[in-house]
Amino acid sequence: MSGIWGKNLRVSIFGESHAPAIGIVIDGLPPGIELDMENIKFQMNRRAPGKSKMSTPRGEKDEFEILSGYFNGTTTGTPLACMIRNADKRSSDYENIRKTPRPGHADYTGFIKYAGFNDYRGGGHFSGRLTAPLVFAGAIAQQVLAGMGVVISAHAQSVAGIQDSRFEEVNVDKDLIERLKASELAAIDPAKGELMKSEILKAREELDSVGGVVECIAMGIPAGLGDPFFDSVESRLSGMLFSIPAVKGVEFGAGFEIANMRGSKANDEYVVREGRLSTKTNNNGGILGGITSGMPVVFRAAIKPTPSISQTQSSVDISSMKEVQLKVEGRHDPCIVPRAIPVVEAAAAIVILDMMLEGRQ
Amino acid sequence: MSGIWGKNLRVSIFGESHAPAIGIVIDGLPPGIELDMENIKFQMNRRAPGKSKMSTPRGEKDEFEILSGYFNGTTTGTPLACMIRNADKRSSDYENIRKTPRPGHADYTGFIKYAGFNDYRGGGHFSGRLTAPLVFAGAIAQQVLAGMGVVISAHAQSVAGIQDSRFEEVNVDKDLIERLKASELAAIDPAKGELMKSEILKAREELDSVGGVVECIAMGIPAGLGDPFFDSVESRLSGMLFSIPAVKGVEFGAGFEIANMRGSKANDEYVVREGRLSTKTNNNGGILGGITSGMPVVFRAAIKPTPSISQTQSSVDISSMKEVQLKVEGRHDPCIVPRAIPVVEAAAAIVILDMMLEGRQ
Amino acid sequence: MSGIWGKNLRVSIFGESHAPAIGIVIDGLPPGIELDMENIKFQMNRRAPGKSKMSTPRGEKDEFEILSGYFNGTTTGTPLACMIRNADKRSSDYENIRKTPRPGHADYTGFIKYAGFNDYRGGGHFSGRLTAPLVFAGAIAQQVLAGMGVVISAHAQSVAGIQDSRFEEVNVDKDLIERLKASELAAIDPAKGELMKSEILKAREELDSVGGVVECIAMGIPAGLGDPFFDSVESRLSGMLFSIPAVKGVEFGAGFEIANMRGSKANDEYVVREGRLSTKTNNNGGILGGITSGMPVVFRAAIKPTPSISQTQSSVDISSMKEVQLKVEGRHDPCIVPRAIPVVEAAAAIVILDMMLEGRQ
Amino acid sequence: MSGIWGKNLRVSIFGESHAPAIGIVIDGLPPGIELDMENIKFQMNRRAPGKSKMSTPRGEKDEFEILSGYFNGTTTGTPLACMIRNADKRSSDYENIRKTPRPGHADYTGFIKYAGFNDYRGGGHFSGRLTAPLVFAGAIAQQVLAGMGVVISAHAQSVAGIQDSRFEEVNVDKDLIERLKASELAAIDPAKGELMKSEILKAREELDSVGGVVECIAMGIPAGLGDPFFDSVESRLSGMLFSIPAVKGVEFGAGFEIANMRGSKANDEYVVREGRLSTKTNNNGGILGGITSGMPVVFRAAIKPTPSISQTQSSVDISSMKEVQLKVEGRHDPCIVPRAIPVVEAAAAIVILDMMLEGRQ
Repeated sequence: MSGIWGKNLRVSIFGESHAPAIGIVIDGLPPGIELDMENIKFQMNRRAPGKSKMSTPRGEKDEFEILSGYFNGTTTGTPLACMIRNADKRSSDYENIRKTPRPGHADYTGFIKYAGFNDYRGGGHFSGRLTAPLVFAGAIAQQVLAGMGVVISAHAQSVAGIQDSRFEEVNVDKDLIERLKASELAAIDPAKGELMKSEILKAREELDSVGGVVECIAMGIPAGLGDPFFDSVESRLSGMLFSIPAVKGVEFGAGFEIANMRGSKANDEYVVREGRLSTKTNNNGGILGGITSGMPVVFRAAIKPTPSISQTQSSVDISSMKEVQLKVEGRHDPCIVPRAIPVVEAAAAIVILDMMLEGRQ
Repeated sequence: MSGIWGKNLRVSIFGESHAPAIGIVIDGLPPGIELDMENIKFQMNRRAPGKSKMSTPRGEKDEFEILSGYFNGTTTGTPLACMIRNADKRSSDYENIRKTPRPGHADYTGFIKYAGFNDYRGGGHFSGRLTAPLVFAGAIAQQVLAGMGVVISAHAQSVAGIQDSRFEEVNVDKDLIERLKASELAAIDPAKGELMKSEILKAREELDSVGGVVECIAMGIPAGLGDPFFDSVESRLSGMLFSIPAVKGVEFGAGFEIANMRGSKANDEYVVREGRLSTKTNNNGGILGGITSGMPVVFRAAIKPTPSISQTQSSVDISSMKEVQLKVEGRHDPCIVPRAIPVVEAAAAIVILDMMLEGRQ
Repeated sequence: MSGIWGKNLRVSIFGESHAPAIGIVIDGLPPGIELDMENIKFQMNRRAPGKSKMSTPRGEKDEFEILSGYFNGTTTGTPLACMIRNADKRSSDYENIRKTPRPGHADYTGFIKYAGFNDYRGGGHFSGRLTAPLVFAGAIAQQVLAGMGVVISAHAQSVAGIQDSRFEEVNVDKDLIERLKASELAAIDPAKGELMKSEILKAREELDSVGGVVECIAMGIPAGLGDPFFDSVESRLSGMLFSIPAVKGVEFGAGFEIANMRGSKANDEYVVREGRLSTKTNNNGGILGGITSGMPVVFRAAIKPTPSISQTQSSVDISSMKEVQLKVEGRHDPCIVPRAIPVVEAAAAIVILDMMLEGRQ
Repeated sequence: MSGIWGKNLRVSIFGESHAPAIGIVIDGLPPGIELDMENIKFQMNRRAPGKSKMSTPRGEKDEFEILSGYFNGTTTGTPLACMIRNADKRSSDYENIRKTPRPGHADYTGFIKYAGFNDYRGGGHFSGRLTAPLVFAGAIAQQVLAGMGVVISAHAQSVAGIQDSRFEEVNVDKDLIERLKASELAAIDPAKGELMKSEILKAREELDSVGGVVECIAMGIPAGLGDPFFDSVESRLSGMLFSIPAVKGVEFGAGFEIANMRGSKANDEYVVREGRLSTKTNNNGGILGGITSGMPVVFRAAIKPTPSISQTQSSVDISSMKEVQLKVEGRHDPCIVPRAIPVVEAAAAIVILDMMLEGRQ
């Protein structure tokens, strides 16, 4: 099983990219929350493809229908179900991958897992399209969190090796957050964003793809959220982040770099700022002992280059077990980092809201 | 809550470093498993401190007593409980940290979380000592997994910036695994291991500490384990790994480096090896779409430098909210990477056994 | 939260009786199961209202649409989502209950729970209509169980005090099961069934309602299913049965009568029958120590009389806190036992399949 | 698996009656709760055997040791572990039941479940002795609940067919509760209690046993606790109650009798009492739509007669599959209802506290 997550806020996702629909059931939302539908559409549009040459030209509209849990303009407190019908389905594109798994995709592992009965068209249940319902749920979670004073923002910290600034290095104010949200490739340093775009388009021309790192910050989380051990904030966030297809690494605060530091530098010394306990640095990413410290929670997720490329690659016909050459036609994203940014925000929002709804903090 | 983990194999940990005992309840072990007590002791001894100048001289013996679930030399299938009494307790060492949280520790977050009622002595429930019961459970899990053909091994991939070889670069055979297990600082390249030791001892002399990266490999896992999305192998392993105190980053396969690769390089092309489907490279760390591919599962965990250092650091007296200078006396590990290696192995073993016990693969 | 259940087979329900739709997501179905759509429709039709004077004349068609998890005629192994659109909605019927809770209904508790934001029309999320998705899931579960040799059947063991025979007293063969399934008011003794119908119609004429007891048997479950304590077969079945609106009691085997027996009579003595261990009696309902014994699992659920009656009743206007007289117009079932029978079967099937999918038995 | 229960308050039990120890880990207790150790001992003593001829003369002292989660006289908020060493072990009593399962016991089902590896001595993990840790946890839960204004009390509503009054029929004030707690066989009507005792002793003389019904009331629970469907108050309470060995039926409010009522009588009409919404009757046992109404929660659990009797019974030697006559020597309770009363209270307290700790009520 796979599609159900959560403790206080539970989500249950379903769908395949060529099934009648994809969707999500959200259980545990507080009652009486007014939903800003325009904002939900805005967040979903950030993830949607087809906006420029940086993404696949597939025309997914991602129009959602709320089926339950919403009455007279507010949440009811009972499960809120949302469905997105699948429209632009070219099933024939995928016939040749049925017995010849695409490298880097879940074709082979899905075939084994489901004994060949899974819907292989367009990646089926493994399709990145399944992140659309997550963004729907995340948009709602972000709205609820905003009412609690928690703000979440993400950007492309790197694409194809081009490094953007880090959140620790700049003033993360409302203007920056708005600018990042409005940008097709959210970079703190606009010049770096342009370089990233060039690299993406270059890879596209060369029938190749590039990856990158998404950095995310959550500000306004009170100290005391999370638990030691198995429900540490890192455990819960990473569990959700690694459920996003293509994520292969997650780090908090200074992350892997902290392994090269000495304790005297890595330790975040305490100071008093504006009457509140604070730390000089934030190498621990706002989390100590699995529990939030009141400092911003900062983390990064490594996104692999899109496995869908149009170059010829080696594969194996698993019916005959013979090695073959595979060339995947179709419409692909040369880089999914731009579209992954709102997905990472959504993932963070869902986890943080789940923890904020915990009775005991 | 925090102390309970798992689906098919469930563990429930308890204890504080200065409470009467620490321990673990393991629920879901198959019945009829003969336990090799010497091996369990060996694994626990790998984690235990006091073996050299690289670790704290605290004399924790970690002698465990099995309280239930074990009868006539085998597991019974009912919950197996294990208790380790705390012996070498110098509570007075910790009196001065009660109101002045140590930087990098969970003193402050624990204080907030538990409204000041938590046992602060020696880190209490946040103590690295709580990993002893995990190693106990992991040793049993490794024994069960060995009977299923799964072997797990870990080494210090880096310490203080000194890089060891990676598992991908060497032949991980029985001899190497045995050598790593027998080594106090498990390094594939012994010369690098000696350099690491030097750096650790140097940090110790300078009243400082260093961190590193533990790399782990699990061989023999069949294809088809794990699930898409929330129960992906990456989600489940990372959730457990981030519950180990001091872990700040987790990556699979090429990890963060994959973000800089192009798809044409990152994709692991399929080949036939010895009649079985295999891949030329293993940049995805044996996991595609959250499901094992049959290739070795490879991951790395970034371990921060021990926050306990004997240098003077800035902190705040949280009763008066005044900034103060703090000097923590006591006996500390200048680097916990050597002792973290068996903990990472244990964490991996518990997660993988949980998944292997899943009815449907 | 409320709408998610299960360990190996997980269901997530959603909907309100006057929302756009109700539905269910089923996660954990084995892949490759061919679904008999006619049988699913048959089971759902057993539950549907409007078939005679014994039930409400509301015209709910309960036409379902499978949204995902079903491909080329079989389950895929990924979440199977099903939606049933709500059609016959007369919202105006319910305006007067908004501030004046109906006795015996969840109007008041739902108002408190959801701070007045719940969809109160037609009982909203508390509507018996929400059992339609359960019957959908149960029909699939029964199909999967049939392939495992497990057969489930239920009947009206009593209605309005009229007692039917018990399953222990008759030969539960294929013919009886078919006859019960085809009957509008499933009774082992047809004469008793006619008497029950008379009582239901009499209550209807008197603007009143009657209750009853549904008895259910599950045959073919192997010995060894279930667990001691918290996952006992009784715990898991009762948890699901008490989620059916109107169930106020659950008993296994001899149930409450066993409390009046002596041990020498209550104990089910062991005998050998057809080479297999069996018991002379089945007072324990096929469960000992929470684990199945291989004997049929037998239980009964007490169904309260429909709270919706057209007589004048006392209530309180919760805005003014004044006592008022309430007369609920509308179309009601004078007895829900006939329609509850397939729901109880479905509930049992879902729980038993969840346990059958457990890796370790 | 079996030994772990809960959402906000989680318990993990372990032990076999002849293992080194039995115990429980309680996770999720609020920090800062002062524990009344004398009260815990008092509750555990109510359950302990050996107090009179009504129970087994086995001398279990049930002396507990708290291993963690308790510091400076209060709970810490981290897992509280408790261990009870097993003392009076006469293992030889049980040798003859190894291959010849006792009727009414879990000997056979445990043998199948655990493939013969379970600890069969004294019932092993299935022993009623495992309820001692539950009573420990329940005593703590009752103390926490008392601080929230929730009081729980239980009595023998029937033994051997002798009926006591019901809670609905009397004034459940502090005096009655104290008297019930202090009584060896808690009956509202003392004369009925004496009759029950006579029946128990009579059964004992005749080498037989008797059962009964425990009725429990929980007063002071606010309206709005619980959820519709799978987390209904009935679902959660019944799930825990059926984990108590020997419970074969659970009913709420009027329970099975409600099935014989008409709606006009069963519906609890609303009235205003002392300014608060109340109901004239409480046939729904304080629960509507799975959610508490603010009325007392009332339920009953049917307890089967002790399966351990000293009469000769038929069984089967499962190694030879031959029918044999079995006579179980040893020391047995002729009726476990008296000792089950504090267990039912404990079970109710654990479930209700779990729900009271829910963030959203």
